[in-house]
Amino acid sequence: MTFSFDVAARAGRARAGQLTTPHGVVATPAFMAVGTAATVKALDPDDLREMGAQMILANAYHLHLRPGDEAIGELGGLHRFMAWDGPILTDSGGFQVFSLESLRTVDEMGVEFRSHIDGSKHQFTPESVMRIERNLGADVIMQFDHVIPGQSDETAARDASERTVRWLARCAAELARLRADDGDRQSQALFPIIQGGIHAQLRREAAVAVRSTGDWEGYGIGGLSVGESKSDMYRILEVVDDALPHDRPRYLMGVGFPDDLVEGVRRGVDLFDCVAPTRMGRNGAVFTRDGRLNIKRAEFRLDPRPLDDECDCAACTRFSRAYIRHLFLADEILGLRLLSLHNVHFLVSLTARARHAIVSGDFDAWSRDWLARYHTRLPVPSA
Amino acid sequence: MTFSFDVAARAGRARAGQLTTPHGVVATPAFMAVGTAATVKALDPDDLREMGAQMILANAYHLHLRPGDEAIGELGGLHRFMAWDGPILTDSGGFQVFSLESLRTVDEMGVEFRSHIDGSKHQFTPESVMRIERNLGADVIMQFDHVIPGQSDETAARDASERTVRWLARCAAELARLRADDGDRQSQALFPIIQGGIHAQLRREAAVAVRSTGDWEGYGIGGLSVGESKSDMYRILEVVDDALPHDRPRYLMGVGFPDDLVEGVRRGVDLFDCVAPTRMGRNGAVFTRDGRLNIKRAEFRLDPRPLDDECDCAACTRFSRAYIRHLFLADEILGLRLLSLHNVHFLVSLTARARHAIVSGDFDAWSRDWLARYHTRLPVPSA
Repeated sequence: MTFSFDVAARAGRARAGQLTTPHGVVATPAFMAVGTAATVKALDPDDLREMGAQMILANAYHLHLRPGDEAIGELGGLHRFMAWDGPILTDSGGFQVFSLESLRTVDEMGVEFRSHIDGSKHQFTPESVMRIERNLGADVIMQFDHVIPGQSDETAARDASERTVRWLARCAAELARLRADDGDRQSQALFPIIQGGIHAQLRREAAVAVRSTGDWEGYGIGGLSVGESKSDMYRILEVVDDALPHDRPRYLMGVGFPDDLVEGVRRGVDLFDCVAPTRMGRNGAVFTRDGRLNIKRAEFRLDPRPLDDECDCAACTRFSRAYIRHLFLADEILGLRLLSLHNVHFLVSLTARARHAIVSGDFDAWSRDWLARYHTRLPVPSA
Repeated sequence: MTFSFDVAARAGRARAGQLTTPHGVVATPAFMAVGTAATVKALDPDDLREMGAQMILANAYHLHLRPGDEAIGELGGLHRFMAWDGPILTDSGGFQVFSLESLRTVDEMGVEFRSHIDGSKHQFTPESVMRIERNLGADVIMQFDHVIPGQSDETAARDASERTVRWLARCAAELARLRADDGDRQSQALFPIIQGGIHAQLRREAAVAVRSTGDWEGYGIGGLSVGESKSDMYRILEVVDDALPHDRPRYLMGVGFPDDLVEGVRRGVDLFDCVAPTRMGRNGAVFTRDGRLNIKRAEFRLDPRPLDDECDCAACTRFSRAYIRHLFLADEILGLRLLSLHNVHFLVSLTARARHAIVSGDFDAWSRDWLARYHTRLPVPSA
């Protein structure tokens, strides 16, 4: 088996697992840093390895448009292209093309859209997306799905969810064809995506429908963190946990913030990804155990402390808040890198810490304490 | 002796030396990367250490304006602030304030200027610059000097050169006062700057005048690479080499490009600095042994080769031209870092290689071959 998932320990719905892929093993729960355009923004692959990142994500949509999935294929695939020899997951572009609003039209065949780069016209179908993801060569590839806004009514949600199940069958058929064509030169696990918006019954029906089509190596949970309330998200996660097999990994797509990770793990999620740590880092926002701070604030002008006292990342072990604030005010690139590094490290370590708590049997207490501290903003000492 | 300079080998005017400072030893000739605002743009101090950079430069002008030299002093000085425990040299701001054109007025006391950041009014005098450089705490600090355009006539050049000598005496007196005041808590070597434009006689007179004021730990050569021709620069370097003591390091300020380094070493220069490798790197320009290339060109779209076949930097050992081109087209920060890293590494290795040639006795042949190859652009193979 090139792919496998073993659950080593449980704590309520939470699980500590081990996902085996062709490019290595991922101890779960795990946060995947997002390398949209084949680079985790502002970071070096060595930064990711040093902080203990195990698996990263890249986007089929962006890489198809630039530099082109065929170019990446010719250059030996995504792992070689971006010098990341660990596991990679590619998103299918569903989220991206459905976010383009006025730039797209949808029918049963697929989605026509205009490139956000140059306005050129493109079509994504379940089949074309599989060809793209085959060229890229990630370990885990997501099916092409129909994504809708978080507050969509049941009719719209049912339509998108049922289409997503139909598109899964087309993805699987095309992937089988591609594998036969190229002599199955690489193993890739296709993950279905469970849709259904905030409608519990639709989520259950989607899980049943997807499971009826095969025993998949893992499952994506899509259409969350797209505008619905946090309580809706947590409720739906519990519904999905009940409906999915307990011996397969679940990947909560596009989530999340530090508290979302802990809440997600509590509800049976194994894999996460989100652009928040790098995007917010580039804006000066810093994750800490006591909530978020903005490094640009005047109070940090002479602050000799690290971003987070308990953090052992390559920013916190070397640089002061005062220095990193200076880098931001002076528009220095190192500032973007240090906060991106710290924030991604924060999430990677957080999932590693959650895993440790699950294995050692104190996850429930640890996660409650962690959330309580995170949500209690400490008064900021004057500089 | 906290400071010393030992010449280990010579080849014509070229020297292989060893400059000892409070923060370590620098094998010369050496290229110093420029960390204008207390960061070598787009690079991490670890990048610099890994590539063998020994000594770096920071700018008094920029750091005085932001975040303030007093803030850096309170935070433990520049070494601690920017997490660089090796030798540092600070420029005095002379070059910067005299580049501000309409924003400044000069008299014997000093220079009044407006900040390029917020237009606020400031005055630099030899005394105030010494206080700034004392607060920053670099190992080598440059005197405040009067910098003029490269093509200035003899009258203007003489005026500026003679003022620079008078300002040297004031710098030395103020530094002595500061040292007495703070119990000489740190050793800093004050380097005079030899001015005189492209006028050989003025350069000789400046050297004589400066040497008559003391036996300095090293000498800056200023006012070159500011608009004069390359042949004028090389001619003046030979004049200055004849006029300066041969047992002290010479630092050619603001130079240079790869060929300038080799030509400078051939004329007795020991230390160099220049923003070119990082600034040009951020624009996509790549130094190679066969001249310069621009990574954005279409010909590199599918090029699997490293930037330079013979380079062992952290960009060339991992990434293809195709990947780095993609990063540039996609405006990805990693691209800026990789080319900055490669270009600085290129100059750091080049001076190290020159040193090796001087020590092993084949510098003359090596430098001629190197220059011939660099100036012969190879035809670019089609991708």
